[in-house]
Amino acid sequence: MENELKLQIIGHIYNDYGGKFGVPRQSGLVEEVISRVVLLPEFRRAEAFRGLTGFSHVWLLWLFSEGFASGEAGEREWQPTVRPPRLGGNQRVGVFASRSPNRPNPIGLSAVRLLEIAQEEDGPVLLVAGADVLNGTPLLDIKPYVPYADARPQAQGGFAVPPEQARRLQVQIAPELLAQLPPDKRPALLAVLAEDPRPAYHAGRQEVRTYGLSFAGFNVRFQVQGEVLRVVALEQT
Amino acid sequence: MENELKLQIIGHIYNDYGGKFGVPRQSGLVEEVISRVVLLPEFRRAEAFRGLTGFSHVWLLWLFSEGFASGEAGEREWQPTVRPPRLGGNQRVGVFASRSPNRPNPIGLSAVRLLEIAQEEDGPVLLVAGADVLNGTPLLDIKPYVPYADARPQAQGGFAVPPEQARRLQVQIAPELLAQLPPDKRPALLAVLAEDPRPAYHAGRQEVRTYGLSFAGFNVRFQVQGEVLRVVALEQT
Repeated sequence: MENELKLQIIGHIYNDYGGKFGVPRQSGLVEEVISRVVLLPEFRRAEAFRGLTGFSHVWLLWLFSEGFASGEAGEREWQPTVRPPRLGGNQRVGVFASRSPNRPNPIGLSAVRLLEIAQEEDGPVLLVAGADVLNGTPLLDIKPYVPYADARPQAQGGFAVPPEQARRLQVQIAPELLAQLPPDKRPALLAVLAEDPRPAYHAGRQEVRTYGLSFAGFNVRFQVQGEVLRVVALEQT
Repeated sequence: MENELKLQIIGHIYNDYGGKFGVPRQSGLVEEVISRVVLLPEFRRAEAFRGLTGFSHVWLLWLFSEGFASGEAGEREWQPTVRPPRLGGNQRVGVFASRSPNRPNPIGLSAVRLLEIAQEEDGPVLLVAGADVLNGTPLLDIKPYVPYADARPQAQGGFAVPPEQARRLQVQIAPELLAQLPPDKRPALLAVLAEDPRPAYHAGRQEVRTYGLSFAGFNVRFQVQGEVLRVVALEQT
């Protein structure tokens, strides 16, 4: 194909999001979840990060990997319109008016807070907060967040509802269930659940259904009634 | 290569920046320059933009095309460290701490203001303000700017100096020279020149040199003394 180009995966993003269900809908919503950004050996060089500690945030450019990784350009499915979960799943908007994965080039873009550049044995690892990607997501690029060019706080956000206007659930979990989780994973799980991981079109349903979410190596089973989310079981996977 | 992936060019960005010299260093610096974002026929469909007019800004993901377009992944040159022009060209920082083109995947990222989605005969064209790309730049993606996730006005910008702290030049141009330019190009050229297109390491030089900048089909020749930039000739190219 004439307009095809080859890029390369330069690393991966690792975190506790074991499944698509539960991953926040945008970056920055759940800063309690920390991701490790690990480059492949070719790119994992301390000098490539020189000067980055002066920046509080970075951009991650990554690949929507679920259902896309093996497709060739041009064979991959894209759809001119998509149904964003936040619009209840029944309203169609253009793919270029959405952050949906079903785009011609399935590249994701996330602003994350840079916590630390850890110098590990095999080279530097970035610890970042607030990524909205699945564990193991392939990485294409890391860029510094340049506030004077990237931050447009007065921008109009269309149908994307800011979090202060978004519903948050009250999360109930029995102490003996919570105790099964390592202490450092607890605030993160509670924050993920408070975001209401259900598809928006489930939120109005009457019947009580049990959902399962994969987080930090556990299958977290929960039910929602009104504004209350109750964890009913935690199963190690 | 195992970690190679194929993406596709979905369109191009057209504007008055005829050469790399003169393109602003970040997006949003020169909003006087308007770019046309034109998709290839396969992607140029009105419904793919449905809902986008509610957003005031969009992200453009594009390809650094100068010196990169023909390279294969893995054969392309990337450098672990680069010399950002704003640091005077003599200080090295890591490529992941910069927005330099010499990155493993030469993808550029620009927040631009969405002025209009023009419905032209062959389909929609996006008119955007503030792009920091060369005329003809290949496009990979358009995403809505979601302020609650993308705008982090409190972020620390490392060595990237915000424009209010940046030097601006006073631009002098004789009326008979300015008259050669179409009226709608004049404010844009003046704004581009005021940004001081010279490499930072030239700014302190004593000798008066004549520079040439390609803009809107003209070769704009100018000299700088102190804080004053004087246009000495305009030649149609």
